[in-house]
Amino acid sequence: MVCHSGDLDKLYSALIIGTGNLSMGWESAIYFTFFGLERLKKGGLDGGNLSRMNFLGIGRWYMRRKMKQANMASLQRLMDDYKELGGKVIACDLTMQVMGLKRSDLNEELVDTYGAVGTWWNDAKDSDITLFI
Amino acid sequence: MVCHSGDLDKLYSALIIGTGNLSMGWESAIYFTFFGLERLKKGGLDGGNLSRMNFLGIGRWYMRRKMKQANMASLQRLMDDYKELGGKVIACDLTMQVMGLKRSDLNEELVDTYGAVGTWWNDAKDSDITLFI
Amino acid sequence: MVCHSGDLDKLYSALIIGTGNLSMGWESAIYFTFFGLERLKKGGLDGGNLSRMNFLGIGRWYMRRKMKQANMASLQRLMDDYKELGGKVIACDLTMQVMGLKRSDLNEELVDTYGAVGTWWNDAKDSDITLFI
Repeated sequence: MVCHSGDLDKLYSALIIGTGNLSMGWESAIYFTFFGLERLKKGGLDGGNLSRMNFLGIGRWYMRRKMKQANMASLQRLMDDYKELGGKVIACDLTMQVMGLKRSDLNEELVDTYGAVGTWWNDAKDSDITLFI
Repeated sequence: MVCHSGDLDKLYSALIIGTGNLSMGWESAIYFTFFGLERLKKGGLDGGNLSRMNFLGIGRWYMRRKMKQANMASLQRLMDDYKELGGKVIACDLTMQVMGLKRSDLNEELVDTYGAVGTWWNDAKDSDITLFI
Repeated sequence: MVCHSGDLDKLYSALIIGTGNLSMGWESAIYFTFFGLERLKKGGLDGGNLSRMNFLGIGRWYMRRKMKQANMASLQRLMDDYKELGGKVIACDLTMQVMGLKRSDLNEELVDTYGAVGTWWNDAKDSDITLFI
C-alpha cells in the first residue's frame, strides 16, 4: 500500500486492511508519503482531519464521539496491532528531504525502512494486493 | 475495489470500471465503507458532492448539466447495470455500527453481503485488479 | 494506473511510481480521467492544486518553494522522463466528450491513446500493480 493521504479515515482503512491481511497470514507493507508521512511525525497519529467536513450529515466532532462509543480502536492502537503482527512501515525519504524532516522528528520506533520508489517497487512487485490510499 | 470515497465522480469511476470488467466476462466486487457507504443509503445515489468545487474551471452545477447533455448515465442507472451484470456490493458492517445504521436504512436490494475486512480480503486475495477509490 | 485526481501531489506520486517501474524494466500505463485529464490540457501541468491547503502545517506557496529547494523535478520534467522511458498515457474519451474537449485542447504529443474503460481494462488485466490515484 501507498499511504499518500493524511486523512484520519483513510489511515483507518489502510491500517484495518493491513491488519486484516496480517491476521490472514499474509504480509503487509505501507509506504507513507506526502500527507501520509505527516502521520508518522511525533504526535501525528492523534490529531488530524477527516476527508470531509461531515459524514452522513453529521459533524467531525460527533463522528469521533460515535467512533469512541462504538469502541473503535484509536489510530495509535490500530498501528500498535499492525506492528505487533509484523506489519512493515516505510517512510518516504523524498518527502522527508523536501520538508526538512529529520528521523528524530518521526516516531522512529514505528519505521522499519526509510526508502524511495525502488523500495516501494520491491515490495509491490510481489504483492497480490496493491492499493493507493 | 474498496469504495471509501463518497464523491460523485469517484463512484462514477468505480461503477464504470466494475461494469467494464463485468462486460469483459470478469467478476467484480465493490466494498463500500466510510463515505462510500453513504451512497448505499436510501436516496444516497442521487445527491452528493464532486471531489472538487470545479472541474476544468467550471462549476459543479454546470458540470452536472454537461454530464446530462453528453447522455452520461446517472449513478442509479450505472448501479442498475452493474447489478444486472452480476456485480457484487458489500456493505461495511463496522461503518454501519459506528453510524448506528440499520439495514433498513440502506437500499437493501443493492447489497449482496454485509461484511468486514475478512470479507473484503476473501475477494481481494483472488483478484487480478485491486483498487482503493 | 488510473489517474482520477488532478491534485499536484497525487500526479507527482503517479509519475514517480510510473517512472520508477519503467526504470526497473517494467511497463507503465496511466489512464487520465476526470480531474486527472485536466492535467493533460495545454498548460495543465504547470498550475493546479495540492490535495490539502497545507502540508505539515505549512502553506502551499511555501511547499512549492521547498520542493524547488530540494531540487524536486517539476511535473513537466517528470512527465518528460516518464514518456522518454516509454511510459504510456491514455486520455479518457468520455471525459473529453462530457467537457467538450477537442484533441487539440490537450498536449497531444503526450497522449498515446484516446480510450475508454475497455482500453484501461486491456492494460490492467495483465498488470502486476494496479492503482487508483
